[in-house]
Amino acid sequence: MAEEDIIVRADALLDLTAKALRAVGVPDGDAAITADMLVATDLRGVESHGVAHLKGFYVDAIRRGDINPRPNITILSETPAAARMDGDRGLGFVVGHRAMNEAMRRAGETGVGLVSAGNSTHCGAGFYYARMALARDMIGIFMTTGGNVVIPPGGARRAYGANVISVAAPAGEEAPFVLDMATSAVAAGKFEIAARRGMPVPEGWGLDSEGRATTDALSFFRGGGLLPLGGTPELGAYKGFGLALVVDIMCGLLSGFGASIQRSDGFSHFCGAVRVDAFLPLDQFKTQMDGMVRALKAAPRAEGAGELRIAGEVEQRLEEERRASGVPLHPTILASLRSMCEELRIECEL
Amino acid sequence: MAEEDIIVRADALLDLTAKALRAVGVPDGDAAITADMLVATDLRGVESHGVAHLKGFYVDAIRRGDINPRPNITILSETPAAARMDGDRGLGFVVGHRAMNEAMRRAGETGVGLVSAGNSTHCGAGFYYARMALARDMIGIFMTTGGNVVIPPGGARRAYGANVISVAAPAGEEAPFVLDMATSAVAAGKFEIAARRGMPVPEGWGLDSEGRATTDALSFFRGGGLLPLGGTPELGAYKGFGLALVVDIMCGLLSGFGASIQRSDGFSHFCGAVRVDAFLPLDQFKTQMDGMVRALKAAPRAEGAGELRIAGEVEQRLEEERRASGVPLHPTILASLRSMCEELRIECEL
Repeated sequence: MAEEDIIVRADALLDLTAKALRAVGVPDGDAAITADMLVATDLRGVESHGVAHLKGFYVDAIRRGDINPRPNITILSETPAAARMDGDRGLGFVVGHRAMNEAMRRAGETGVGLVSAGNSTHCGAGFYYARMALARDMIGIFMTTGGNVVIPPGGARRAYGANVISVAAPAGEEAPFVLDMATSAVAAGKFEIAARRGMPVPEGWGLDSEGRATTDALSFFRGGGLLPLGGTPELGAYKGFGLALVVDIMCGLLSGFGASIQRSDGFSHFCGAVRVDAFLPLDQFKTQMDGMVRALKAAPRAEGAGELRIAGEVEQRLEEERRASGVPLHPTILASLRSMCEELRIECEL
Repeated sequence: MAEEDIIVRADALLDLTAKALRAVGVPDGDAAITADMLVATDLRGVESHGVAHLKGFYVDAIRRGDINPRPNITILSETPAAARMDGDRGLGFVVGHRAMNEAMRRAGETGVGLVSAGNSTHCGAGFYYARMALARDMIGIFMTTGGNVVIPPGGARRAYGANVISVAAPAGEEAPFVLDMATSAVAAGKFEIAARRGMPVPEGWGLDSEGRATTDALSFFRGGGLLPLGGTPELGAYKGFGLALVVDIMCGLLSGFGASIQRSDGFSHFCGAVRVDAFLPLDQFKTQMDGMVRALKAAPRAEGAGELRIAGEVEQRLEEERRASGVPLHPTILASLRSMCEELRIECEL
């Protein structure tokens, strides 16, 4: 937390977020789901995908008519373990939540459920959807297309999506495994955070509008773009690029709504649920998870490297702390929430 | 192809490989499957995983008793869309092939099939298994644990597996999408190739035994290790590491045989088959695939960067060429095949 951040209670943030969404026509239940996801994201320290986007990405887009606050989300086709859904341009949170529930219902019956949902909008961070599976002792998989802000290997311009892969798996005594990663070197939101805080970015995150390496966080907002995970072709950029296309295939193509490069105006998601006890007893799985985590943590460390972190571990600790102590928000985020409240004529009780 | 390589006909290589495997007790059908996979790997230019390993990885291991040439591969548990298998320490090729067929059979019925198979051995390159799904108009997913040769982010020593993810999806007029990637910066075999050819490796592939950056290909064989995809924590090493754990979870933990870090002596695989027409008509999917590939290739390129390659495209072109013209083999590989033939007392007709 930077010095100038202001601490806000999580439940106050939750109430405000839900209220703002209701004010622009989102039904109570959907507003509650969306608010829970956005605030959970800030609780876990993923500042790039939380309430910082509430006004710009969601409330304003609903008011402009770009997001449908009352979508008629439908199943277009289905088999016992698979389904394809049309999100009717609803809030990505609502579409993703519905799709994950459909995947889990199928997994309950056949052991596995895969659902591809298109014609949706931005759905925030991926971890929440994957993590939904944990409560049912399932492995959760979530993918989503992102905005077209990534430069392909050897490319000169942004061309395809900052596509995301998230996987969650239950553990026993250890924290559950919760991976949530963009297939680009970083998520675009990391440039937003750096720009907001006036910080440079590491070389290797992106290129400027002339295709040159840069450490200027503002370069991204001036025609630059992100690099794929791996950075250069020699060090694996074709792997990050390939993984991004897997996300496009599972989200955009299987749902029938096209890949990120073909559609700059819509998002698609993919949900997978895998019932652990379809394979082996849950306890046996969890014991192995704990064993794997402990063996990894016991492996020799480089001098000064600190503890090895397993995906989701730091975030879970932060979430517990922040549920008690509150969420630190940058003053510009607070200002955007206040101006949103004025526009919507709702009280800003933070 | 380097100047000193010797060209060998693919069918001669296929015959010799199958004959060698039969000579150490592998049944005809399993020997044919394994030979086809090994030679297909060389045909596609994946020199790191082809017949170069026939003697050392497979024939010698069978003779030592480390691989069971006549395994009793069994299904330990199953639901309509999922199964867990015990490979009985058979050749990884045979176990992986059987597991992929089980996954596809399930996908035929429910739309999706996921199979986790443990107690197996090294299975070569991942693309072959994923690609098996294409003939049935399915998306194929294959994962396998690799040898424990990767250094975790901030680690000082090799600790976990060079775990692999492969995904194949059908296209229309374009080459099918076939991604096959280690979750490390590169596969260990790339160090073998560089060492064999006396070449340095790029900085960022691995660390030496003292944990220092290195360009010496031999460092890997002297106690060094591979870096995760992403390289450094700042540029995404935790993503490569996280993806490797996903592979461990799906292969080793779901099969009940443990993660790579817990078992240095065995391999596990995971197969997924997804029926495209469970989601949408096949033609609609293929048209979108072609459209995605063409849009990506039409995106602006950096000066001198050459054409953007889609996963599997270069390899398919090479496979077609080499089926006609033959496979170039480094003299040391040919020598290892000759010495193997002498030991097994079989003719070396290459």
